[in-house]
Amino acid sequence: MAKSQTIFFKNKPVITGSYAIVGPKEGTGNFAEYFDYVMQDDRFGEDTYEKAERKMIEQAIIGAIQSSKVKPADINMILAGDLLNQLISSSYAARDFKMSYLGLFGACSTMAESIAIGATFVDAKQANNVICSTSSHFSTAERQFRFPLELGNQRPPTSQWTVTGAGACVLSQTGNGPRVTSATFGKVIDWGVKDVNNMGAAMAPAAMDTMLTHFRDTGASPEDYDLIVTGDLGKLGSEILIDLMEDNGIKLGLNYNDCGQMYFPRRHAVLCGGSGCGCSATVFNSFIMSKLKKKEYKKVLFMPTGALMSTTASQQGDTIPGICHAIVVESEED
Amino acid sequence: MAKSQTIFFKNKPVITGSYAIVGPKEGTGNFAEYFDYVMQDDRFGEDTYEKAERKMIEQAIIGAIQSSKVKPADINMILAGDLLNQLISSSYAARDFKMSYLGLFGACSTMAESIAIGATFVDAKQANNVICSTSSHFSTAERQFRFPLELGNQRPPTSQWTVTGAGACVLSQTGNGPRVTSATFGKVIDWGVKDVNNMGAAMAPAAMDTMLTHFRDTGASPEDYDLIVTGDLGKLGSEILIDLMEDNGIKLGLNYNDCGQMYFPRRHAVLCGGSGCGCSATVFNSFIMSKLKKKEYKKVLFMPTGALMSTTASQQGDTIPGICHAIVVESEED
Repeated sequence: MAKSQTIFFKNKPVITGSYAIVGPKEGTGNFAEYFDYVMQDDRFGEDTYEKAERKMIEQAIIGAIQSSKVKPADINMILAGDLLNQLISSSYAARDFKMSYLGLFGACSTMAESIAIGATFVDAKQANNVICSTSSHFSTAERQFRFPLELGNQRPPTSQWTVTGAGACVLSQTGNGPRVTSATFGKVIDWGVKDVNNMGAAMAPAAMDTMLTHFRDTGASPEDYDLIVTGDLGKLGSEILIDLMEDNGIKLGLNYNDCGQMYFPRRHAVLCGGSGCGCSATVFNSFIMSKLKKKEYKKVLFMPTGALMSTTASQQGDTIPGICHAIVVESEED
Repeated sequence: MAKSQTIFFKNKPVITGSYAIVGPKEGTGNFAEYFDYVMQDDRFGEDTYEKAERKMIEQAIIGAIQSSKVKPADINMILAGDLLNQLISSSYAARDFKMSYLGLFGACSTMAESIAIGATFVDAKQANNVICSTSSHFSTAERQFRFPLELGNQRPPTSQWTVTGAGACVLSQTGNGPRVTSATFGKVIDWGVKDVNNMGAAMAPAAMDTMLTHFRDTGASPEDYDLIVTGDLGKLGSEILIDLMEDNGIKLGLNYNDCGQMYFPRRHAVLCGGSGCGCSATVFNSFIMSKLKKKEYKKVLFMPTGALMSTTASQQGDTIPGICHAIVVESEED
């Protein structure tokens, strides 16, 4: 039997606070009513998009702390990362807080990576409270990974739209709120996709691997969850995942969806849907948290997916590996 | 009183294996006799430097596993990161191993970040064995962060030489070897240095902050350690640290040194010394591990330092924040 990639949290760390901030386009999307803050312009009063992204993550961290009612002095560490080279949004944002900082990179899987590692610290009583956060910004990601914005480059049908948004939550040893009960850490999976405009195809095999591993390690099946949600496979990627799971004898039903697929309405013309760390992070820290708090969802399998793509690697002929980490979050017991 | 940034490992995870691979220049440096493998050329048979760096980290991981005698099937996860955008050395290397992968970014502090997080998993019995690894390569770092190699750019006196090397170790719940007993997670500290050729000055305040925090949290003082070693402050940065600590009433003695300062002999003409994730990683996984195993060192405070610099942030006028994480490693008890 294969070794377990899943860890179970005996003390079930509590998500005591959460916050989601998004850009103007996202703020008129399908999750509009759930976000804590919608920016009026995506520069957010800064002179560069990168500084705007940093300011978003700062605001998300502050908002999550306020929502948690935990005193900043009682928060041990920030676990954060983003898509920008050297994680400049997270690292520079962390300067403002008198807390330890752990930089993480899992591309768009970072929200789950940070919660899974943060929950490990809290569960083991090595931290009382931790902050988990991530962000992405359409304009910073587009020019770093693809083309200068000024080029007005045409987007192929498989492309996705990087969400401008940041999400953060506070995990605590005590308090009220939904609880993180387990985490499945994914492997790097590479099936040879080279198209930087088809992230869904690059990430779907990793989502499949982590989902199969999660079901194997936990003995759970899809119907045990009110929602199974991948991060940003988008319309094509999530269809590929459904097919791949069916090939493995597991049928994903109506309780499966993908944050990227759900994010934008058709009139936004974003082709295959949303993407970026901020995609699943803002959905998790607004919509999903809201449903868990109201107990409309009792048990959610949250599986952000990351395409570990790099311009340097692509230029050298490399394929695009994917990764997917999963966490299980359950509503508070009555 | 300030909150603790230090965690103590009750079960003291064991470093059951370690491995260090370096480039030809490093292989004729001051730690030459300790390395496991010296490459004959820094392309390592690959067609790009980036692929050579990836191959180094692959070899380091395999070497550490072999040295630990732990079966690959019993290793739960790889915790790794490097300096390259999107951590391509680590992420692509992780494809080859059937293990969960957690990407970490702490710039040159990554060896301590990975050991500290890895030890948390092992200590909490959430993993039986984990691999911690990092790498750097002079030619990949220089062209990503500074200038094209072909330019033959002149190096100012404060500059340091990115070590070409990769280190890896295996942390285990059981077995023989030195043990990780505590970790102090650092904050992001920014004192306003903007010079990308003076990393030592950018990182020294972070090293000071983490060292003061470590002594405060643990009640230890410098003489409690056989070796206190920072990562890659280099000649200037480590002098700044000594001054800063003295300003805080703590005198660092002859048991303090810096991996970057120690790495190269004068004839290598590297100005302020070595730098890069590979600098402290290869010293730790060869020289320091050897001394701990022979019990010539009983207790080591290992404090890799990272400059969270980014070309994008620099171009936008930002300063360079630093970070430093510390771990305490003790030789096996008799």
